[in-house]
Amino acid sequence: MDFELRILGSSSATPSANRHHTAQILTIDNQFHLIDCGEGTQMQLMQYKIKHQRICNIYISHLHGDHYFGLAGLISTMHLQGRQNPLHLFGPPGLAEILSLQFRYSGTNLTFNLIFHELDTSAYKKIFEDKQITVHTIPMEHRVPSCGFLFREKPKPRPLIKEKLAAFLTPPQLVRLKWGEDIRDERGNIVVLNKDVTMEPKRSRSYAYCSDSRYKPDLLPYLQHVDLLYHEATFTDDLRDRAHYTFHSTTKQAAELAAAAQVRQLIIGHFSVRYKDLTPLLEEAREVFTKTDLAIEGSIFAVRE
Amino acid sequence: MDFELRILGSSSATPSANRHHTAQILTIDNQFHLIDCGEGTQMQLMQYKIKHQRICNIYISHLHGDHYFGLAGLISTMHLQGRQNPLHLFGPPGLAEILSLQFRYSGTNLTFNLIFHELDTSAYKKIFEDKQITVHTIPMEHRVPSCGFLFREKPKPRPLIKEKLAAFLTPPQLVRLKWGEDIRDERGNIVVLNKDVTMEPKRSRSYAYCSDSRYKPDLLPYLQHVDLLYHEATFTDDLRDRAHYTFHSTTKQAAELAAAAQVRQLIIGHFSVRYKDLTPLLEEAREVFTKTDLAIEGSIFAVRE
Repeated sequence: MDFELRILGSSSATPSANRHHTAQILTIDNQFHLIDCGEGTQMQLMQYKIKHQRICNIYISHLHGDHYFGLAGLISTMHLQGRQNPLHLFGPPGLAEILSLQFRYSGTNLTFNLIFHELDTSAYKKIFEDKQITVHTIPMEHRVPSCGFLFREKPKPRPLIKEKLAAFLTPPQLVRLKWGEDIRDERGNIVVLNKDVTMEPKRSRSYAYCSDSRYKPDLLPYLQHVDLLYHEATFTDDLRDRAHYTFHSTTKQAAELAAAAQVRQLIIGHFSVRYKDLTPLLEEAREVFTKTDLAIEGSIFAVRE
Repeated sequence: MDFELRILGSSSATPSANRHHTAQILTIDNQFHLIDCGEGTQMQLMQYKIKHQRICNIYISHLHGDHYFGLAGLISTMHLQGRQNPLHLFGPPGLAEILSLQFRYSGTNLTFNLIFHELDTSAYKKIFEDKQITVHTIPMEHRVPSCGFLFREKPKPRPLIKEKLAAFLTPPQLVRLKWGEDIRDERGNIVVLNKDVTMEPKRSRSYAYCSDSRYKPDLLPYLQHVDLLYHEATFTDDLRDRAHYTFHSTTKQAAELAAAAQVRQLIIGHFSVRYKDLTPLLEEAREVFTKTDLAIEGSIFAVRE
């Protein structure tokens, strides 16, 4: 099963000549989750040949334009191309009101069911669940209500070692073994020890998206051991004061959080337009956390099972 | 004085791989008039190195997303880059409400004065005037209230032929000569015949923007002898019925209007995404009106004085 993040844009506030506004596609098991949707996202999807009809859920972190001004256009295009599948939209209060107003004035009656889920951006809360994954909000600290998103695969079954399985095991017992239980007899004595007949399950992968926010060390509990952490790093660390009063973070702050949370890989993004060359941002972060990469448009970060 | 149209986008409804949504910059005397503002307009302005801070007026024809979804982003960028000059925005009822809502949720308090002029899209009406030009709305026929825009230079003064000017002429008399009057004595007799001492004035140039609309021959009186006519031609003429029921026009219809109005040059645009190659649209229009060109992104149409 694939678990792969594609960066569509990573510029902050205003776009720069070669960087679009924030948008990312997280592919899990061939389903597309779109995270933020800055202006031009539908063109970026075309650019990378990503079929927007396969987007199942869209998550909007906050209502600054650089994170959602591409949303109405993308939804319009889905509509004009006759989408039938429902679309789930997760966003802060206000987003549904804005879209409704736009569609009212354009006389648009969508061809599909757009299901809006209003988020409480101040809480860590499960907002989505299917067979494979859960998605939680992570509270951010920004000028307007803002949250990140934590995507986690659910625990996976332990593969059975067929040649070690006793013939008397019933199908329900096999299911229990897959989920880690030992098998006991009527008196409660263990007759099959789980670890003797099963292997370690495949890893449950995770991705945490944190944008936009001031440095917030209390995020640590949510980020422990995630595979991929995207954290905004709008500024280099010499602009730490500016980062603070504009409610953003620096390279070093993002890297410190990644190190403390012992994540596997850090991706920094949401770069201020002042940085034409992004090398200084990368180098600064790597001083603290070596496994850091830049959220360059088109980059793919795949997590193996 | 320059009078120049630059195409930034000309795709209809949904963007195609190499065509952005509708937006155009009309430059008159170094002032930028932005006509429609589809998604991605601010990136297109960067692409063509057009400084958005020099945009004085923005005109939105109607509230379908492909004509205005780039507006909130462009205004945000002007704000974030500290614009001070006022910006005049002309658009249909509803536009101010949409922008206000977006800026309320983003906590944006613009650094400049955004002056909204609500348009009556059903009437031919003067909506702007300065020393050089007037702008009028032209009523269109579309699914939602929609209007075109007619830009006209004001009449220009007649250059004086210095060597033919009598010494007795006073400064006020010279001004009257420039504006075409003869000079008379106290009894009303002509003492200086205007045509003897002045030359023909430079031409007053004009541009008519017509999008989106059903074929509407009653536009003719507004379009007579304009220098440049942009008319939507969403479809080739074999899809005339489809054009009619989707409230759009065909190549031939645009060309017939251009021919009847005796315009100098026709530009067709707002192409359906079904046309990857635009040659058939151009050829069909040229059969009726030879001086037709395509609204290709980046194209410039300059009108000489």
